[in-house]
Amino acid sequence: MSAEREDRAACHIIQGGRVEHAEFTAETAKRLLAKDEFFWLDLDQPGQGDFQVLTDVFRFHPLAIQASEDFGQRAKLDEYDDFVFLVVYGASHDDDRLVEVHGFYSERFLITVHRDDAPAFTELRKRYEERSEPIEDPPLLVYRIINGLVDSFFPMLADFDDRIDELENQTFLDPGDRQSQEIFAMKRLLVGLRKAITPERDMFASLIGGVAELPGMTQEHERYFRDIYDHLIRISDLIDTYRDLLTSSMDVFLSTVSNRLNVVMKQLTVIATVFLPLTFVTGFFGQNFAWMVRNIAGWEAFVGFGLGLELAIVAVMLVYFRRKGWF
Amino acid sequence: MSAEREDRAACHIIQGGRVEHAEFTAETAKRLLAKDEFFWLDLDQPGQGDFQVLTDVFRFHPLAIQASEDFGQRAKLDEYDDFVFLVVYGASHDDDRLVEVHGFYSERFLITVHRDDAPAFTELRKRYEERSEPIEDPPLLVYRIINGLVDSFFPMLADFDDRIDELENQTFLDPGDRQSQEIFAMKRLLVGLRKAITPERDMFASLIGGVAELPGMTQEHERYFRDIYDHLIRISDLIDTYRDLLTSSMDVFLSTVSNRLNVVMKQLTVIATVFLPLTFVTGFFGQNFAWMVRNIAGWEAFVGFGLGLELAIVAVMLVYFRRKGWF
Amino acid sequence: MSAEREDRAACHIIQGGRVEHAEFTAETAKRLLAKDEFFWLDLDQPGQGDFQVLTDVFRFHPLAIQASEDFGQRAKLDEYDDFVFLVVYGASHDDDRLVEVHGFYSERFLITVHRDDAPAFTELRKRYEERSEPIEDPPLLVYRIINGLVDSFFPMLADFDDRIDELENQTFLDPGDRQSQEIFAMKRLLVGLRKAITPERDMFASLIGGVAELPGMTQEHERYFRDIYDHLIRISDLIDTYRDLLTSSMDVFLSTVSNRLNVVMKQLTVIATVFLPLTFVTGFFGQNFAWMVRNIAGWEAFVGFGLGLELAIVAVMLVYFRRKGWF
Amino acid sequence: MSAEREDRAACHIIQGGRVEHAEFTAETAKRLLAKDEFFWLDLDQPGQGDFQVLTDVFRFHPLAIQASEDFGQRAKLDEYDDFVFLVVYGASHDDDRLVEVHGFYSERFLITVHRDDAPAFTELRKRYEERSEPIEDPPLLVYRIINGLVDSFFPMLADFDDRIDELENQTFLDPGDRQSQEIFAMKRLLVGLRKAITPERDMFASLIGGVAELPGMTQEHERYFRDIYDHLIRISDLIDTYRDLLTSSMDVFLSTVSNRLNVVMKQLTVIATVFLPLTFVTGFFGQNFAWMVRNIAGWEAFVGFGLGLELAIVAVMLVYFRRKGWF
Amino acid sequence: MSAEREDRAACHIIQGGRVEHAEFTAETAKRLLAKDEFFWLDLDQPGQGDFQVLTDVFRFHPLAIQASEDFGQRAKLDEYDDFVFLVVYGASHDDDRLVEVHGFYSERFLITVHRDDAPAFTELRKRYEERSEPIEDPPLLVYRIINGLVDSFFPMLADFDDRIDELENQTFLDPGDRQSQEIFAMKRLLVGLRKAITPERDMFASLIGGVAELPGMTQEHERYFRDIYDHLIRISDLIDTYRDLLTSSMDVFLSTVSNRLNVVMKQLTVIATVFLPLTFVTGFFGQNFAWMVRNIAGWEAFVGFGLGLELAIVAVMLVYFRRKGWF
Repeated sequence: MSAEREDRAACHIIQGGRVEHAEFTAETAKRLLAKDEFFWLDLDQPGQGDFQVLTDVFRFHPLAIQASEDFGQRAKLDEYDDFVFLVVYGASHDDDRLVEVHGFYSERFLITVHRDDAPAFTELRKRYEERSEPIEDPPLLVYRIINGLVDSFFPMLADFDDRIDELENQTFLDPGDRQSQEIFAMKRLLVGLRKAITPERDMFASLIGGVAELPGMTQEHERYFRDIYDHLIRISDLIDTYRDLLTSSMDVFLSTVSNRLNVVMKQLTVIATVFLPLTFVTGFFGQNFAWMVRNIAGWEAFVGFGLGLELAIVAVMLVYFRRKGWF
Repeated sequence: MSAEREDRAACHIIQGGRVEHAEFTAETAKRLLAKDEFFWLDLDQPGQGDFQVLTDVFRFHPLAIQASEDFGQRAKLDEYDDFVFLVVYGASHDDDRLVEVHGFYSERFLITVHRDDAPAFTELRKRYEERSEPIEDPPLLVYRIINGLVDSFFPMLADFDDRIDELENQTFLDPGDRQSQEIFAMKRLLVGLRKAITPERDMFASLIGGVAELPGMTQEHERYFRDIYDHLIRISDLIDTYRDLLTSSMDVFLSTVSNRLNVVMKQLTVIATVFLPLTFVTGFFGQNFAWMVRNIAGWEAFVGFGLGLELAIVAVMLVYFRRKGWF
Repeated sequence: MSAEREDRAACHIIQGGRVEHAEFTAETAKRLLAKDEFFWLDLDQPGQGDFQVLTDVFRFHPLAIQASEDFGQRAKLDEYDDFVFLVVYGASHDDDRLVEVHGFYSERFLITVHRDDAPAFTELRKRYEERSEPIEDPPLLVYRIINGLVDSFFPMLADFDDRIDELENQTFLDPGDRQSQEIFAMKRLLVGLRKAITPERDMFASLIGGVAELPGMTQEHERYFRDIYDHLIRISDLIDTYRDLLTSSMDVFLSTVSNRLNVVMKQLTVIATVFLPLTFVTGFFGQNFAWMVRNIAGWEAFVGFGLGLELAIVAVMLVYFRRKGWF
Repeated sequence: MSAEREDRAACHIIQGGRVEHAEFTAETAKRLLAKDEFFWLDLDQPGQGDFQVLTDVFRFHPLAIQASEDFGQRAKLDEYDDFVFLVVYGASHDDDRLVEVHGFYSERFLITVHRDDAPAFTELRKRYEERSEPIEDPPLLVYRIINGLVDSFFPMLADFDDRIDELENQTFLDPGDRQSQEIFAMKRLLVGLRKAITPERDMFASLIGGVAELPGMTQEHERYFRDIYDHLIRISDLIDTYRDLLTSSMDVFLSTVSNRLNVVMKQLTVIATVFLPLTFVTGFFGQNFAWMVRNIAGWEAFVGFGLGLELAIVAVMLVYFRRKGWF
Repeated sequence: MSAEREDRAACHIIQGGRVEHAEFTAETAKRLLAKDEFFWLDLDQPGQGDFQVLTDVFRFHPLAIQASEDFGQRAKLDEYDDFVFLVVYGASHDDDRLVEVHGFYSERFLITVHRDDAPAFTELRKRYEERSEPIEDPPLLVYRIINGLVDSFFPMLADFDDRIDELENQTFLDPGDRQSQEIFAMKRLLVGLRKAITPERDMFASLIGGVAELPGMTQEHERYFRDIYDHLIRISDLIDTYRDLLTSSMDVFLSTVSNRLNVVMKQLTVIATVFLPLTFVTGFFGQNFAWMVRNIAGWEAFVGFGLGLELAIVAVMLVYFRRKGWF
């Protein structure tokens, strides 16, 4: 019995202006349904037993239950006979920066299910707790929940913007593996975000286009969902923008590394060009040709060949490199 | 006679709750048709003779027969007068990771034809064998078959994800031909997967959009096929995501190799910069100018020019490279 | 009281042929509404108090007020019951080169709100001031305002064109970090411009396609808005063109750096190829083999081995490099 | 007269079950039209005179005649009052691997015009010759002709697949100009193929979508043309796939060359790192400091400084490179 | 008065079978309008005064006049109450290879305005001059004009094709800045062409799709405009093809430069590998260890150590490089 209990998730309930923190059991569910008031039930990290309650008490369609257990889905809105099943995404602080929320919504209740932390929910519950009034406008609640999730992407994307600028500066100072690694990591995150946002945006497009519908939704609510849609387009535009910028950053990175390589090679060439002839000259006068040794015995030979020739070579090199702009 | 026999494929039949493993002959086919019960006949690695039976007994349209013999097609659903012809893909363990299944489906039977192994089928047959009940809902059977094929892609794609991460780590440790070769091989596999999945996704889009239709399909079945469609979109999104990541991986690979090259060149330059002037100095004092030789005879000259000058050069170099951050 | 005052923006008003510069208060707003004449009120850098006046006096929908406070939006046209809310962009001289203008437009007034400088507005006001006639055709005013904003992009884009040409020339003279940095900066600006222009273009497409509508707009006005739409397509085409060119510029940059690297490496190879054998020869005759030293004592040996051999090596090298085209 | 004759193309005619090889003249044309039986006339490498016959005898629209003379067109189907004008492509063995066929088709005849060899036609004629029966189903003849042309692409594309694999292997063994040159040549061919196939695919899409129509086409024929459309989509998919693979091949090529360069540079660095200090030491003891020369006169000095020091340097280098993994 | 005169453009007029070269004044315009015959008036390099005549005499809509003065537009067809305003492009021989033609077309006249030379027009005028018949079919005149402009792109694109082939060959012989510079220049031209052609193609799509209409256009004329549309698609396909090829050319260029660099580096490595050990050996026997000098005094030591050892090193190197395939 206790084993089954552990499988139970804690849930937050709002009904009739009262915010409650309870264990999620069949009894809790039945009690909520018994009252004739709209309720919002939020299940955090649900287990097998919780889905069983959803099946047994709420009698949701098996495909909807199965979908709600399967995390890693596309945002969507599936209409069933007496409820809709929703998948929406928000920002979080974990590895993939995403929280996936599944929702069952009918005219009588909203049940949200998620595995990662959803800070937007805590805030929203506090608001209802402070006002202690019943949920009189369920679609507006749905709007607030989704709006909270969607708007949580904006600060995350603002961080991206700053990070790209910083990366750019670091690349020019000292391009290294760390920059290319971070560009890749950021691209990977954006690819993940985009995979979450694009279907969510399309889902709201079909919601405000009238293709899909939420129970109890009026013209006025549509205005609010249009606002969410507008934000999702902006988020999706920003993601594309940052992807573009990261691609350009990679180009700049590669070009900077190439430039540096070019500069290093020029230095090597300058060094070789200066010292190889000098070394040749010293080698020349180090040869053991007796005739030559005899003829370079005086100090005049040393100054002329030993010092003068070398200095002349250096001077020629300097002029040459100055003309080439390498020096 | 025996030669013709060898040309015959083995087939699995489910009819009236009985799972049967038989040789595929005209007689078997006629017997199945004679009973007034829906049957599923699965042909593995069919030969010329088998297609002859399909032509002679089932009297399928020549274009459908021709299409069913031709492997390497796009997923599709062709409606004929009294049946539909299907091509769908699933994951397998062979080289291209794909199994192509051709199906003839009418209200009275489903005939599936494939060349590669389809593990999803074995499992499904076992399920029908255990329950031993007739196939009462043919479109649901079709759903289960295709669902089994489609969902077999998910574990394969999860492997891809792990492999990309691993590749990334290897690239940073020691970028070599092996990584770029594997990136290419994975891209090639993804290109193949994409070619199979995209038409399959579009086919289900037209199926749930009502453009195409399966015999006996109801509103409730459509919900199931919508589920398959949803999975196919996710698979197709994942493929695109991995392609993007592999492209980025290649960029990172190239940038890492460039970085390494830059580092190696800097080392070469450092070595040349340190040793070329040193060697010049030793060469200088190795010259046979008698005047010079005479004047560097004492130990003071050796310590000053022979050791001191060299050490001074090394010191200057160290300061220079430290300032450049190369050392 | 004074604190609240500071929160107030200055505003420019045109009503009944009179241009006025006033403080934006509830009284000003009420006075304007009291007269039965169309007015244009332009709010520069509005504060919290100003939005309160918009809420209290004009009673705009809370979503519209909220949107007008939120800068960084996509160009859009939201229709409310008795007014439309507009977001449009123009060129400016600040960092992102954009000015974002929010507008509330009804048959009785146009209220524009912006944070950055909008030079197009000053010019337009001057025109109305000089003529001192009432605004008889409000949609034409809207056309003139948006036309001013949109056409301000053309000179900016002409600058881009010149800058790309210049960059190209600099790249061929001396490719360095500065060029790749500027290419990146220009790409970043274009990405920002594109994010502003694309939705603005689509908004006008839906305006002239009849999907959206401006109060009081006639067939003749549509012709004018079609002209704006045409300009927006041209701007959007130009942005795409410059992006393409910048991408090609980066390719050219990389190829030029590669070429230069190749040239430098060839020079290094030539130097090493010339001097290494020469140095080997001098080293050879610098060896202390007594037998060899004895046999090269005459001047003939010096001329033959010391000079002749070296000159022969140089001659062979020259012929070799000439044949390879490196010299 | 003879000059005009030379301008005449040979033509193949099938009418009433008889295959005929004749000269194309106005008389031939009139004779064919006189009989009340469908005929197929195939003109190979037509000259100016032949087009004159088409104008004079068949009275085709001048735009159609002009189009049929102009090779290098997009696949299309133009409907005229009493005939349709077709452009379709097939595979051939010449430089661009394409044969362009122009066709005039009405309920009474099919006239095909081409410049390159069309092997598919020879085969088809043989088939009609063997059966010697009249063309009873003209749209089926059109299907067979186009099907022959379209299916001739498959073996060519299979060759591409093999060639890409081979290229890949060669790149890993020894990347050189030849591989990049071949990748470019294959891309160029694919670009040409794609330019031919894409419009052909779209033309069949509009044919089976009912936008365009062939005279005498029934529901059953549509099934056949749908089959051609299916093949064209597969060909077009294959072309895209190979383009993708060639792009990846180029990436792999570049990365392999970079890797090799890196390896070569490491070797150069190893050599310089080993020999520069050794050479410095030999230079050091080659100096003419009399004091030093005196003090290294014994065999102990030679063994210690001359041999021991050098061996110590080599030993240190070996340990260093082993630790870096370069050795 | 004379100042105003200078502002006047010369114009070519065709009316009633007569080709006339006149000064463009209000009187000329009125005279043409007075006659009840269709006329074509071609204005080359019009000035301010000319546009004034268009406004005063023809009373065109101010937006149309404004558009006709503004060169650098997208191809378009704007319908006004009693005329249409056209922008179309043709090929020319100037820097951007384009001539932009603006046209006012009604059932009574066609007025064309352009700044660059339009060779297609001269040819067309000559044709009308020779036949001296009135313009009986105005839409056919429009067809001929636009057809002349459009078809002038084909020879230019054929030049591109040749140039790309040539570039490819040069790249393999000797890749340098000149090639990458030319690839960039050609890309820039193609980007410009594409910007002109794409809207022109879309404009004809809407013309033959019935979205836009030319005054007096019949079903038969549509066939002609469909022909222009067909040519525009081909031009647009060719442009895309050449862009693709130029991108591949750049890849090939970069890979060729990389290959060359690799080859040069190998040579440098070979040289260093051969000469560094040789030089080390000569340095070794150049050391002043008295014991060593004493022991290598005989000719046997010279032959063994001085010659034999060096030759042995060279032999080992040769074998080594042969095995590596570098030699």
